[in-house]
Amino acid sequence: MAARRSARVFMMELYSYFRSSASYRVRIALALKGLAYDYKPVHLVKGEQVQAPFSDLSAARLVPLLKDGEALISQSLAIIEYLEETHPAPPLLPADALGRARVRSLALDVACEIHPLNNLRVLRYLVHEMKLGEDDKNRWYRHWVEEGLEAVERQLAGSAATGRFCHGDAPTLADVVLVPQVFNAQRFGCRVDHLPTVMRVFGECTALAAFAGAHPAACPDAS
Amino acid sequence: MAARRSARVFMMELYSYFRSSASYRVRIALALKGLAYDYKPVHLVKGEQVQAPFSDLSAARLVPLLKDGEALISQSLAIIEYLEETHPAPPLLPADALGRARVRSLALDVACEIHPLNNLRVLRYLVHEMKLGEDDKNRWYRHWVEEGLEAVERQLAGSAATGRFCHGDAPTLADVVLVPQVFNAQRFGCRVDHLPTVMRVFGECTALAAFAGAHPAACPDAS
Repeated sequence: MAARRSARVFMMELYSYFRSSASYRVRIALALKGLAYDYKPVHLVKGEQVQAPFSDLSAARLVPLLKDGEALISQSLAIIEYLEETHPAPPLLPADALGRARVRSLALDVACEIHPLNNLRVLRYLVHEMKLGEDDKNRWYRHWVEEGLEAVERQLAGSAATGRFCHGDAPTLADVVLVPQVFNAQRFGCRVDHLPTVMRVFGECTALAAFAGAHPAACPDAS
Repeated sequence: MAARRSARVFMMELYSYFRSSASYRVRIALALKGLAYDYKPVHLVKGEQVQAPFSDLSAARLVPLLKDGEALISQSLAIIEYLEETHPAPPLLPADALGRARVRSLALDVACEIHPLNNLRVLRYLVHEMKLGEDDKNRWYRHWVEEGLEAVERQLAGSAATGRFCHGDAPTLADVVLVPQVFNAQRFGCRVDHLPTVMRVFGECTALAAFAGAHPAACPDAS
């Protein structure tokens, strides 16, 4: 992967957890732009994100967190927009305003409608506080993934703007956000056979070195 | 409010539901930019978003949906970024990349960490499918609002970039997203007394005509 552990001055640092899909998005974006970075693991299952020293760096107490010089940026989509503005080539957003809107909208269909319902702290709250059993928790998980990806499928299948990737023939922010969600869908046994366009695009993406190198299993903290 | 029902050619159309906080964000942004639009109500409680004619327009089946000429854009943050690019004055994002990242990050702290957990279809799924009682549903709602707004409070209170508004002394995307969330927090009886900076900014915003005119109670479909 693009991450290196050498101590070159000015190298960006990414605080990440291998299984965090929001971190996975940023790892893909950094790799697509060819940007090297120091990988800083934050173990979410152990709760390191809410403890010092990480909580001193991140008032949001969330990964991913990008450190660029003295600047600290959280929220994966804000980080990727920042990378797009500071390292514009290759672009992850189209040049035209309508294309950019379509790509951002597809990314948000995953980032706002699917992923927030299924992250670790939400699943834990359902089990520990709402007292849901394992079956209900899994039904909850699959429901939002399957319904949410269906909405993405309708948009991809119904638009002439869809190409080899979500938007045209080069990867964009939409693909960067879609791939980790499909990875999770497969990991949790969600249906994907009703998503032919999504799965075709997923296949195109995962064949690229930038996506493969950002995969959770390729992270230094993978276990 | 800025919405007009006249049939001027090229006027944008906003498909909205008065109580949808994502729609509320876009109404505020349109008002801050002084853009007139036709208000097209979509009744979420009646399920109009998943039925024709709206579902023919919106493959995502979500409000808000902006129609600008022949273009259709969904997802509130994608719509607002589009408005920012096509109608840059007054700006809702700072000029510098780091400022833009901070504002987007704060907006996403609400749009990805709080709001998705508490929208209508999620609450309905908790009650109808997960069989949660009213008390548990309300506890769920308040938990994510209170925890999420605490994270925003820590970031606002801990940064010299916070001014009269979330970022400096003019409203930005961060305020546009924060205000509907605080409105919901108050509506559902969430604690807000532990959020002095959030509430100070909320007060600054709601004193402005653009925010007041976009309020749910000011919408044509308010009931």
